[in-house]
Amino acid sequence: MVTIKKVAEEAGVSVATVSRVINQNGYVSEGTLKKVKSVIKELNYTPNSIARSLYHKTSNMIGLIIPDITNPFFPELARAVEDIAMKCGYKVVLCNSDKDPEKEMNYLDLFKERYVDGIILTTQSQESKVYSDLNVPIVALDRIGDASFPSVVSNNYHGAKKATELLMAKGVKNIAHIRGPKNIAPSDARYHGFIDAVEEQRVNYTIGEAEFQLEDAERQAEQFFDIHTGIDGIFCSNDTIAAGFLKVALKRGIKVPEELQIIGFDGSFFGEFIYPELTTVSQPIYDMGAVATRLLIKIIQGEKPEKYLYEMPATIIERGTTR
Amino acid sequence: MVTIKKVAEEAGVSVATVSRVINQNGYVSEGTLKKVKSVIKELNYTPNSIARSLYHKTSNMIGLIIPDITNPFFPELARAVEDIAMKCGYKVVLCNSDKDPEKEMNYLDLFKERYVDGIILTTQSQESKVYSDLNVPIVALDRIGDASFPSVVSNNYHGAKKATELLMAKGVKNIAHIRGPKNIAPSDARYHGFIDAVEEQRVNYTIGEAEFQLEDAERQAEQFFDIHTGIDGIFCSNDTIAAGFLKVALKRGIKVPEELQIIGFDGSFFGEFIYPELTTVSQPIYDMGAVATRLLIKIIQGEKPEKYLYEMPATIIERGTTR
Repeated sequence: MVTIKKVAEEAGVSVATVSRVINQNGYVSEGTLKKVKSVIKELNYTPNSIARSLYHKTSNMIGLIIPDITNPFFPELARAVEDIAMKCGYKVVLCNSDKDPEKEMNYLDLFKERYVDGIILTTQSQESKVYSDLNVPIVALDRIGDASFPSVVSNNYHGAKKATELLMAKGVKNIAHIRGPKNIAPSDARYHGFIDAVEEQRVNYTIGEAEFQLEDAERQAEQFFDIHTGIDGIFCSNDTIAAGFLKVALKRGIKVPEELQIIGFDGSFFGEFIYPELTTVSQPIYDMGAVATRLLIKIIQGEKPEKYLYEMPATIIERGTTR
Repeated sequence: MVTIKKVAEEAGVSVATVSRVINQNGYVSEGTLKKVKSVIKELNYTPNSIARSLYHKTSNMIGLIIPDITNPFFPELARAVEDIAMKCGYKVVLCNSDKDPEKEMNYLDLFKERYVDGIILTTQSQESKVYSDLNVPIVALDRIGDASFPSVVSNNYHGAKKATELLMAKGVKNIAHIRGPKNIAPSDARYHGFIDAVEEQRVNYTIGEAEFQLEDAERQAEQFFDIHTGIDGIFCSNDTIAAGFLKVALKRGIKVPEELQIIGFDGSFFGEFIYPELTTVSQPIYDMGAVATRLLIKIIQGEKPEKYLYEMPATIIERGTTR
């Protein structure tokens, strides 16, 4: 292996000079700089960053814990985290936890041992003490954590309320909400947004429930349309549920948006792959990932977060499933 | 920080004994094992894996270079790589190269410096010398590399040929292929599979072209349907192109599959979100990722690959866009 000593010998300078060139600190004359750089290139020398990391106790690595990268919400998030991390000189370790507490704990253990510089969490299956014991900066994304570390979320409540109001403004008389799983913060917040909108206008409504997952959404939709007739507007807790309800409606010959209007939530890319294209409450997924990563890096570098809740606006994108 | 020495003191044993417990090698009595483990837990001690990695010159880290995690093909692949890596004690560093040679080179430089144990490559924008100079095991996925490292691909040619034959067997008279970008190996192989199938049966055909990207696919579809009338079967080079052509056909009131049958390629999850559901040539994306990762880890551990081309079967999933 090529060592820094070997580079120094070849360049005819001291090890300290080579070190100054590599770390870009301290004075080095232009001629020496050129010489050292050319020797580094010639010998194909790479500074030993693991040794550096041992010395400085940093790894330039960020752990990203998500439930499942194949869930359409997370690729864009992961992309944003990696883009910003890369720009700031950090690498991203990808972890799929499947919301399984044991799997998440395994990753947290690894991260402790390996000295990641920070963690972006999108699931929290542990007691809050577990996270604080890690002694590693954490930013939570899409889930509101406790106050020991900051969260970046979108405004689920207001997005849901606006979507419900839009359906009513577009002439919907028999409105329904298909909520996501209970006790998941975004799902609960969207439910409350819907409820407040319909109750403000004293309108009757129907509530269904589905997992954030296509197969279950279709199963629930079949049952739903069997029982409830005359529903002319549905606000679904996410785009996957909306896609399932749209498919089943089309299969049954229900005309969308003429007889039934549908709004989803998330702004997932596949909403545009569908025909009619899905009207949705778009979360700024990429921006949320970017804000969380910038915030985490600031905290890693010793700054205090200005606040503990970063709420980002969700906006309605009107497409083909509303009139 | 809690050191191994501190643990040894507290447990009343030697550092070597603690080391044997941590590394699970050499004899330790059951009583001592219990004692050491409880002290490790009590002091919240984590063995310093960066130091270990410096010593052993391994990082237990795999670099995964993909064009873009938001491209629907890659989340499932990334998921497979991470699942297998995790099971074998490796972590995965996610890198989006955007097929940009400079970005890819940056990652390769980082990997060299950081001693990743191996790399899974899905883009190759550099001269082959760059890869061999890395001195790091590499497995290529979805792209056929040169013979210096093994590739895992699906059988694009045969999958395309079978899809084309299926369309003709289902009564298609005026067949078309929308090929993907030229000089991308899977796109070229699928084109040749189509050509050989139609020429074997001496059938007239039409060729179109689109990027692997929805917006361009829709634009090409609009032009295509303006020029070509009476096309009753289209084999598209991937599912995204197929989704674009399906959308435009439905928008124009063309009945699918009654008047027009469509087959895509990939088996992307969104094929089931669409109505009618997309018939597709499914690549075993997850299995390809798993095979590549297992192979890479074998090579990391000193085994020679048995062969340099691992070709996995692509199978047709018949859904709603064919009769």
